[in-house]
Amino acid sequence: MSKLVIVGTVAFDAIETPFGKTDKILGGAATFIALAASHFQVDGAIVSVVGGDFPQADIDMLSSKGMDVSGLQIVKDGKTFFWAGKYHNDMNSRETLVTELNVLADFNPVVPSAYLDAEVVMLGNLHPLVQLSVIEQMIDPKLIVLDTMNFWMDNALEDLKLVISKVDVITINDEEARQLTGEFSLVVAAQKIIEMGPKYVIIKKGEHGALLFHRDEVFYAPALPLEKVFDPTGAGDTFAGGFTGYLTKTEDYSFENMKTAIINGSALASFCVEKFGTERLLELSKKELHQRLQQFKNLTQFDIGLT
Amino acid sequence: MSKLVIVGTVAFDAIETPFGKTDKILGGAATFIALAASHFQVDGAIVSVVGGDFPQADIDMLSSKGMDVSGLQIVKDGKTFFWAGKYHNDMNSRETLVTELNVLADFNPVVPSAYLDAEVVMLGNLHPLVQLSVIEQMIDPKLIVLDTMNFWMDNALEDLKLVISKVDVITINDEEARQLTGEFSLVVAAQKIIEMGPKYVIIKKGEHGALLFHRDEVFYAPALPLEKVFDPTGAGDTFAGGFTGYLTKTEDYSFENMKTAIINGSALASFCVEKFGTERLLELSKKELHQRLQQFKNLTQFDIGLT
Repeated sequence: MSKLVIVGTVAFDAIETPFGKTDKILGGAATFIALAASHFQVDGAIVSVVGGDFPQADIDMLSSKGMDVSGLQIVKDGKTFFWAGKYHNDMNSRETLVTELNVLADFNPVVPSAYLDAEVVMLGNLHPLVQLSVIEQMIDPKLIVLDTMNFWMDNALEDLKLVISKVDVITINDEEARQLTGEFSLVVAAQKIIEMGPKYVIIKKGEHGALLFHRDEVFYAPALPLEKVFDPTGAGDTFAGGFTGYLTKTEDYSFENMKTAIINGSALASFCVEKFGTERLLELSKKELHQRLQQFKNLTQFDIGLT
Repeated sequence: MSKLVIVGTVAFDAIETPFGKTDKILGGAATFIALAASHFQVDGAIVSVVGGDFPQADIDMLSSKGMDVSGLQIVKDGKTFFWAGKYHNDMNSRETLVTELNVLADFNPVVPSAYLDAEVVMLGNLHPLVQLSVIEQMIDPKLIVLDTMNFWMDNALEDLKLVISKVDVITINDEEARQLTGEFSLVVAAQKIIEMGPKYVIIKKGEHGALLFHRDEVFYAPALPLEKVFDPTGAGDTFAGGFTGYLTKTEDYSFENMKTAIINGSALASFCVEKFGTERLLELSKKELHQRLQQFKNLTQFDIGLT
């Protein structure tokens, strides 16, 4: 079976939405990526760092999902990364209330030796140089997927460009794609990003779905129209985890199979937003996922008709 | 063959975009609707009004596309409706520079007697009471489709609600759906609009495609990702014309067939924006339309995969 290396934060989040608020709960990019990928029973490893305040029960939970946690460093006298945020009424904009880097400030990622030959690497949002360090440790990965955000474009653009030049797939949201390239048209923006290195560009458009670009091909994955988005936290990471988890499981990194991987990622993300934090992902059944994939299929199928 | 009644403006537009500007050119909702519908060789009639300044050549052109123009009133001593607008760099927002209602101010629509028994009625954006007058003239239409905009929500809401209660399908953009219902979620907004009368609600999201709602069913039509939008004027009307033209031609008003009709409308709209005004629609071949429909198919098809 192929192996998946997951790099990203393991964190505490405190979330406020129009529907309620939480105390510190389990969060972080690597957490969401791992939980999403685990729905495909992949052999994954989490590369991250937490403080002595991080519950052993959460580590055990990740382990029980088939994740190797030997690359999850525990800094006993340190504190876990903490983020607090508030979503506004339309759920499309959010305000960061608190960011405490804590142990993340000195994070030096170490990929467990048993995973240095992993086929797939998912680089969750982190400082580009941390992401780069992981790439450099890997022996011969078949697929490196990068997630990033505008913060690094503002604060570490040259480092970010270096990482981008070394990955196969980048996931980025529409505004970030525009910022990175200075192009308004997402088609042109994607072309420019492909010139920077990645063979595949996934542009995430939130409630409007996602676009996958490769050479002159494009695929449009819809988002499921939802009555209510309860908490968007982790949706992008869940998408990335579903995408890489599916590819790792199927060992097929073609454009055609990436379409299916994106739909699986979108389906998992559509569950993620139904409850706070990781709650919905943790209780999600195989049957529910299958039904939702069928909903995505029904949502988009049509005949072209007469002509 | 079924018949299609088209109500809307026939106008002059002066358009400025980042790519250039035009003098007064042919425009208007009914014009774009008719030109789009004509690609399905329907038996259509335009119900509208122009002034003595309107070129006979344009009337002849519409007539040559299979449109009955006996309901296109000509006020010899009046001037044709004129709109001038400017699009900003992102092409998603526009500024109205001039609106001269002219002969439209006193427009009293009269459906030609040969079309009173038409099966399909397309009510392009106009004062709700003008739209209502057309509905009241029709004998037994199978499908009434309404397009409207936020201007009427601001200025004639009660009249608009009355019209909405009498139609089968409404096309409306996302912001207008939110304004009309006070709901942010488009799923909830669509449900509220369905409670107002229409059995089908089409929410247009511009570059993000369109959603069709019916009972608890939903269909997501993508927009074709474009390198360049040259001039968005008339895209919504072209969409509506393609939609109603396709339904008129096929005489099948089911949810399933509406999906195909929406894709045909989207394909035609994707051509419309490639050049100024009606230019691209006028030169469009059957083969090009077919190829683009196939592109829409390729854009959205996927397997759901493993599960």
